Amino acid sequence: MPDRPIPDRPAAMEPSGSYNRSSRVQSEGVAPALPLLEQAARTVAIPAAPASVCIADYGASQGRNSLAPMRLAVDTLRPRLAQGRAILVAHTDQASNDFSALFATLESNPKSYLKLDPATYAMAVGRSFYQPILPPGSVTLGWSSWAVQWLSHAPREIPDQIQIAYSRDGEAREAFARQAALDWEAFLRSRSVELHQGGALVIVTMAMTDEGDFGYRDIVAAMYGALIDLVASGFLHAEEVRRMAIPTVARRRADLLAPFAPDDRFAGFTVDHLDIFLAPDWIWSAYEQERDAALFGARWAAFNRASVYPTLAQALSGEGGEARKIAFFERLEQLTAACLAASPRPAVIPLALMVLRKGVD
Amino acid sequence: MPDRPIPDRPAAMEPSGSYNRSSRVQSEGVAPALPLLEQAARTVAIPAAPASVCIADYGASQGRNSLAPMRLAVDTLRPRLAQGRAILVAHTDQASNDFSALFATLESNPKSYLKLDPATYAMAVGRSFYQPILPPGSVTLGWSSWAVQWLSHAPREIPDQIQIAYSRDGEAREAFARQAALDWEAFLRSRSVELHQGGALVIVTMAMTDEGDFGYRDIVAAMYGALIDLVASGFLHAEEVRRMAIPTVARRRADLLAPFAPDDRFAGFTVDHLDIFLAPDWIWSAYEQERDAALFGARWAAFNRASVYPTLAQALSGEGGEARKIAFFERLEQLTAACLAASPRPAVIPLALMVLRKGVD
Repeated sequence: MPDRPIPDRPAAMEPSGSYNRSSRVQSEGVAPALPLLEQAARTVAIPAAPASVCIADYGASQGRNSLAPMRLAVDTLRPRLAQGRAILVAHTDQASNDFSALFATLESNPKSYLKLDPATYAMAVGRSFYQPILPPGSVTLGWSSWAVQWLSHAPREIPDQIQIAYSRDGEAREAFARQAALDWEAFLRSRSVELHQGGALVIVTMAMTDEGDFGYRDIVAAMYGALIDLVASGFLHAEEVRRMAIPTVARRRADLLAPFAPDDRFAGFTVDHLDIFLAPDWIWSAYEQERDAALFGARWAAFNRASVYPTLAQALSGEGGEARKIAFFERLEQLTAACLAASPRPAVIPLALMVLRKGVD
Repeated sequence: MPDRPIPDRPAAMEPSGSYNRSSRVQSEGVAPALPLLEQAARTVAIPAAPASVCIADYGASQGRNSLAPMRLAVDTLRPRLAQGRAILVAHTDQASNDFSALFATLESNPKSYLKLDPATYAMAVGRSFYQPILPPGSVTLGWSSWAVQWLSHAPREIPDQIQIAYSRDGEAREAFARQAALDWEAFLRSRSVELHQGGALVIVTMAMTDEGDFGYRDIVAAMYGALIDLVASGFLHAEEVRRMAIPTVARRRADLLAPFAPDDRFAGFTVDHLDIFLAPDWIWSAYEQERDAALFGARWAAFNRASVYPTLAQALSGEGGEARKIAFFERLEQLTAACLAASPRPAVIPLALMVLRKGVD
């Protein structure tokens, strides 16, 4: 079990809902998973009443990207249930997640299942999902998108990068690979405890292409370059940047399948589906239409800011307090945006889509 | 159903966990309720497996004051359950509540049920409790302390006060009394839907003594006086103070019992216990020991700040932004503390303690 919380995407200091507003890359990446989620919802075993029917949303963040999959899951399960039977939707994330933004989204967004189905009930669990956090056998259908790429913690510093995929440091690469394997197994074991027999778990997560490409090449280079520039200009200390490590990993097909060797089973799970695909790059598509390079750069920088700046900011020394942190966010965003605006190119966005079935052991 | 969220106690702008640190008056007030909670936990009907055993904590805030009652409830229910049977603890509060502080408290405090009982599972619901927010019949045992005194909304302005109990405005008093009656019925009806047959609900809430005393006389006077001073000094506009209304009510015994007339039943509930009592004033007791008037004033001001300043701040005009808000908190706290330090006196802290049983209709 990890003894440190996993670094958070939305920072407490960021305006509420910022991840909701800057996560369209993530929501578009999820589209190919929806038919498989629907298929899973059509075929999972329904627990006998009075047990609850529970959909778990592992790594929900601020909820906007959960609206479409949760609505689809509810709408598909609903005709399979007795009239008025309650469906619980349990949204999990780390304790530091902005649950107020999540609940506000669920309460007010017209596409929320709470608005559309009166027998649904929303709850949140603010605990690391690298341990069981819902009762044994209580989950009918699980969903996790853009979440399990976040390790329980960065196992060590990355001397030459902030993203391990672009590091040439062998020891760091090995430490991250080891942690990624441990966390993947911990995630699967924990979900297996929680899933009802006959349940299913649909996962979308960052992946390496079969050619070993992590993607986001220009975006990572622009961000790391901006950090180096901030050291050169004296705004950041070199030690601060050395401590910065984004604890995300892209897993290869072989990494995802490793626990299931040799007999295609792990912790009661079998692999129903595994696909590695490239998600659409809506920021590039918009640029092709609009030819607005500044907007292109600003959109990728906003994506970075909402998804990883809070983690990077944890490496800042305390000096200068909140004001320096805010300045860090602003400067990093501006420099990254400017760099990307200078030569817009499409990004490779590799994702894995996996469906696991919980069988009788 | 209220169409506005109930004003929040912990403001997003306040440092995380501030309610946890300044709510000892509330936690001490709860002590006499614990034996009745234990009694309820010993006697509630346990739902047949595989239905979940669920304890609901209505109005949990940041969790510290829930630790003792939830642990007691878990420890009392545990021997009544089959080995390893899961107990869910559902903590509810408004969407704007600081759920990150709640989950951090549950995860790390050594007195947390999560630390002490491995078959417990924490969840949060960030929705107003003036509607059903948990599945029908899903709650085994309910607890609500210092919460249902908060109305769904302030029904109107209070021209001459911030606390309706000390207003002489007949229309305002009537509007608050009407809203209090509506909200109390809505709360009871909603809980009745959620409670399992044979379940129980233990409530601690602000009350009027049988002599009609709201209590907190010096504290309310000091706070209102400080607001008037802030208008006189030009820091606040008179319209801002006029808009400030703390939407809490102290209910009389008769108010609490009104829905149960004439046949002692309401929405499937019967009243098992109702007591109005005076909670200990630990701030006064500490002053008697320490004779530190400044500390006396500072403690009551911190109590006010954590419990009601965020609500008052909602009445500020937008001008000056966050900086003015922060200055408002600081100045109000300082002025109130100084006023109370000038002549320390004990406070009257009236509370109602009520146990309701959900019977078969």
